[in-house]
Amino acid sequence: MRPDLRTAIATVCLSGTLDDKLAAAAEAGFDGVELFENDLLASRRGPAEIRRRCADLGLNIDLYQPFRDFEAVPPDVLARNLRRAGHKFDVMAELGADTVLVCSSVSPDAIDDDDLAAEQLHLLATRAAERGLRIAYEALAWGRYVNGYEHAWRIVRRAAHPALGVCLDSFHILSKGDDPRAIRAIPGEKIFFLQLADAPTLPMDVLQWSRHHRLFPGQGDFDLTTFTRNVLDAGYRGPLSLEVFNDVFRQADPYRAAVDAMRSLVALKDSLGLLDVPAAPVSTGFAFAEVVGESNLAALGFTRAGVHRSKPVELWTQGEARVLVNAEGEPGAIGALGVAVPDPAAAAHRAKVLLAPPLSREAGPGEAPLTAIAAPDGTQIFLCADEDWLGDFVPTGESASPAGITGIDHVALTQPFDNFDEATLFYRSVLGLEPGATTEFAAPFGLVRGRGVSGGVRLTLDAALVRRGGWAPAVKEPQHIAFTCTDALACAEVLRQSGARLVDIPGNYYDDLAARTDLSAERVAALREHSVLYDRDDRGEYLHFYTELAGARVFFEVVQRIGGYGGFGVVNAPIRMAAHHEARRGR
Amino acid sequence: MRPDLRTAIATVCLSGTLDDKLAAAAEAGFDGVELFENDLLASRRGPAEIRRRCADLGLNIDLYQPFRDFEAVPPDVLARNLRRAGHKFDVMAELGADTVLVCSSVSPDAIDDDDLAAEQLHLLATRAAERGLRIAYEALAWGRYVNGYEHAWRIVRRAAHPALGVCLDSFHILSKGDDPRAIRAIPGEKIFFLQLADAPTLPMDVLQWSRHHRLFPGQGDFDLTTFTRNVLDAGYRGPLSLEVFNDVFRQADPYRAAVDAMRSLVALKDSLGLLDVPAAPVSTGFAFAEVVGESNLAALGFTRAGVHRSKPVELWTQGEARVLVNAEGEPGAIGALGVAVPDPAAAAHRAKVLLAPPLSREAGPGEAPLTAIAAPDGTQIFLCADEDWLGDFVPTGESASPAGITGIDHVALTQPFDNFDEATLFYRSVLGLEPGATTEFAAPFGLVRGRGVSGGVRLTLDAALVRRGGWAPAVKEPQHIAFTCTDALACAEVLRQSGARLVDIPGNYYDDLAARTDLSAERVAALREHSVLYDRDDRGEYLHFYTELAGARVFFEVVQRIGGYGGFGVVNAPIRMAAHHEARRGR
Repeated sequence: MRPDLRTAIATVCLSGTLDDKLAAAAEAGFDGVELFENDLLASRRGPAEIRRRCADLGLNIDLYQPFRDFEAVPPDVLARNLRRAGHKFDVMAELGADTVLVCSSVSPDAIDDDDLAAEQLHLLATRAAERGLRIAYEALAWGRYVNGYEHAWRIVRRAAHPALGVCLDSFHILSKGDDPRAIRAIPGEKIFFLQLADAPTLPMDVLQWSRHHRLFPGQGDFDLTTFTRNVLDAGYRGPLSLEVFNDVFRQADPYRAAVDAMRSLVALKDSLGLLDVPAAPVSTGFAFAEVVGESNLAALGFTRAGVHRSKPVELWTQGEARVLVNAEGEPGAIGALGVAVPDPAAAAHRAKVLLAPPLSREAGPGEAPLTAIAAPDGTQIFLCADEDWLGDFVPTGESASPAGITGIDHVALTQPFDNFDEATLFYRSVLGLEPGATTEFAAPFGLVRGRGVSGGVRLTLDAALVRRGGWAPAVKEPQHIAFTCTDALACAEVLRQSGARLVDIPGNYYDDLAARTDLSAERVAALREHSVLYDRDDRGEYLHFYTELAGARVFFEVVQRIGGYGGFGVVNAPIRMAAHHEARRGR
Repeated sequence: MRPDLRTAIATVCLSGTLDDKLAAAAEAGFDGVELFENDLLASRRGPAEIRRRCADLGLNIDLYQPFRDFEAVPPDVLARNLRRAGHKFDVMAELGADTVLVCSSVSPDAIDDDDLAAEQLHLLATRAAERGLRIAYEALAWGRYVNGYEHAWRIVRRAAHPALGVCLDSFHILSKGDDPRAIRAIPGEKIFFLQLADAPTLPMDVLQWSRHHRLFPGQGDFDLTTFTRNVLDAGYRGPLSLEVFNDVFRQADPYRAAVDAMRSLVALKDSLGLLDVPAAPVSTGFAFAEVVGESNLAALGFTRAGVHRSKPVELWTQGEARVLVNAEGEPGAIGALGVAVPDPAAAAHRAKVLLAPPLSREAGPGEAPLTAIAAPDGTQIFLCADEDWLGDFVPTGESASPAGITGIDHVALTQPFDNFDEATLFYRSVLGLEPGATTEFAAPFGLVRGRGVSGGVRLTLDAALVRRGGWAPAVKEPQHIAFTCTDALACAEVLRQSGARLVDIPGNYYDDLAARTDLSAERVAALREHSVLYDRDDRGEYLHFYTELAGARVFFEVVQRIGGYGGFGVVNAPIRMAAHHEARRGR
């Protein structure tokens, strides 16, 4: 028996006025919303009109929130608080919302007295029940006296009123490192509401962390699957509701953010075994990567191996590396990636369930049908089987002298800032790529946040953290394809001799490398001679070098992984970026 | 005897490659730089070439940094660390830099043993002295065992080597709340370097706070004047050097950021009594505010009182409120502010010393000479005496029926994100306006940071915290002029009857106001009837209402301050913003 759980989203997750938020939630297919009071206050629609608007959109108002600083107070404050509550109940009645969130008090008026809290919440629940309403009591992680869910549940149990239950919020529980297993001890019918939020691990004040950096499930570091399983095991069958305070989502296109949000719930349901959807594909590697316009692959030892039967696209190959050069599209962009999967139809079905935007693509006569979806940054992702698609290219019979490139190691895609976390979830849920740790480094023109996702294929996703254009050189940062080789020094030498335009690395870099590592003088000299950069981790080494920009936005990297090195040489990225900038400026 | 202190800036404060940073520091007039190793590593110029470049630019390399995790380690680690140090000394010799910053260790290799630390630093200083170099030892606020400046000084004293001294960094000291008075116990000649940074008070991990949110002196909450006075009292006469890690400055125009940085040091010197410059002017109020293009002031009860003798500018007045309407300029912008000061020439001289960009302005025959400077957001600030400038306008003899507006309360200027902190320092140092607390609120289209600056005139400075354009309605946020009145309800009634287009405030707002305050039902009803918003603080009340947008970017507010209310009704800003948005969308 798989429970068919409803989905909801708090209006605070989305940007815009209430009208914008409701329309976006409905369009993304949510069943309901948590209505935030501030959104109500700023709306020209009265509560009854909002109720009708939600009904028209097919949205239920599952929760009205927040009601703050109610419980465990002296009698005069209680009287004021009950008066406030009466006003809220009036609004809720007009809205047709039957549950209100009561957050544990942060007020200096509050008293550390569970009996008093229980007694006053019982009174509030009695008033609510008279109106046909119920109270969901939640422990804020920074509550004055009540800041753990087990504590909130003890108070609710003591109050023992049928209109009083708990609200569980994954952030408040997991941010404190509380064990969610004790949730199973709460009767399901006493869990009145479930709020889900993920978050990155950040060393900061929990209130600021909560108010600015929450993420949709699957975008951060919390284990929402285990958390939610405990809640379902307890017997909860209410909506899965997202409550994500995030500075970026708060200013991003709400229609797009709502789809991202819904994807997070579909993926969560899938991880809980609640959906009948094919498992994430296990990719066997890149079928190809496509660049648009000039790319100068000949200078890198690639062979122009084929020409597309019906489109202005050439196939360039070297070893297992296959690059398509498309004459149409945004010049200099990485336009498309081919991801080889065992069952493209199943992968396409999963992509559809996970709300990946499909791309229509006309196959010419005799051409292989290819399924393509759009990644958040607009890159086309083709789901390919074997090498059927190669038949779309007429072989040229040409052959060039290879330079030692053997395949594609990874593709680095620069993300629009608003879509960085969306991209993580997209690749994770649609293609089954696991995200690595998020890194931040100081590039010459500001901080850059990056994250690798990998599993069969590797991608790196980068976004400028603050920069909004302005003085720095490129509004759209370049992207690149990293090729593998088995001997970076030899490959660099061959390429330089054949006239490839490789980036020169400053001598200062090698002086420092010699100072901070135990590399032999000979090794450092060889790296210096060939402008090859170096990194290592506890499992191996990484040698890599770069070409100059081949077009407006694309360049290439050649990498040699030695041992089990698992990174992408991020430590060297500022060196490369400065070198590209100097080269572009023409020194 | 006023010491003539040199100025320096760490390259990490500025955006760009090393060439960009050095050029910007030189252009802003700095005497020297702290050279960050990462900037050196990414530069194509070798150390000797950088030395020549700095000499050409008139810059000394006052410090090379950082050298990390040196002291109090086992012998094998010490050997490695001395080898690393040798490499640094080589680089410094080529650079011509004589002082290196050694940060207290954060390494797990470090041992909690001050004697060992002193012994090893003595050894390092001996090696340095052999090369003619010196070691400035600094306690990081998050150092493993050494994290306070008094502790670092104890170790330096114990080591007792002439080439070893301390580096004092205001952030590491003030962020921990350490008392800077003990600095006076350190002999001035043992303070090898002084690093200055301000910061906002933020509840966060001190390392993250330090690495991302430092500010130039005068932009944050630290008392740099008292701090620096203690250092000078100790006898320090080295450079005042800025070391500011800030995510915004790291991606902003370095030439502009360098001027901002230099202004902070000029202002600091002035606050220490080290400069011969007129005191900050004590403004007596707004002489005028100028809007460009359509403004519809007639509907607000203003009289078109005069026409400029030589420019397409009209003077509109009501009570003490004077608004110029300029037909030329960016339509809808607040183009200029007239600030009345007792001595415009002195104010202009101060502005020049504080690097305010002067604006050339041709006075026509018989017109008053006016001094104007450019604020960071481009607004022209005129420094006016009395009402001399009124003579530039030919009276029209017209008169309209006033609506009760009595003057200008404040002007709200929307700031480019990159210049928010620059603006605070500009108004504080050039015009003597004191900044209030920084506030953040969730506007319908993302977070907005704001700050009032006041003293004779009041301004509010707002900037969108994350938004970069994109989906939300206006790329350039509107700005507004707030007029004073003595009876907001009566004024709103008069204006509405005379056809002024005032913003309608949603009924939900008043329902909530009744619920959360003890205002009488009659008072709430009156506010509701006239769409007047309400706020209060512990000193008084604030009644205010808004016009619709008069042009592309300008609207007006009318405010009534009751008692000593000191704010700007920020709590109601989201309501107003949503209302403007709805009105613009035409519902």
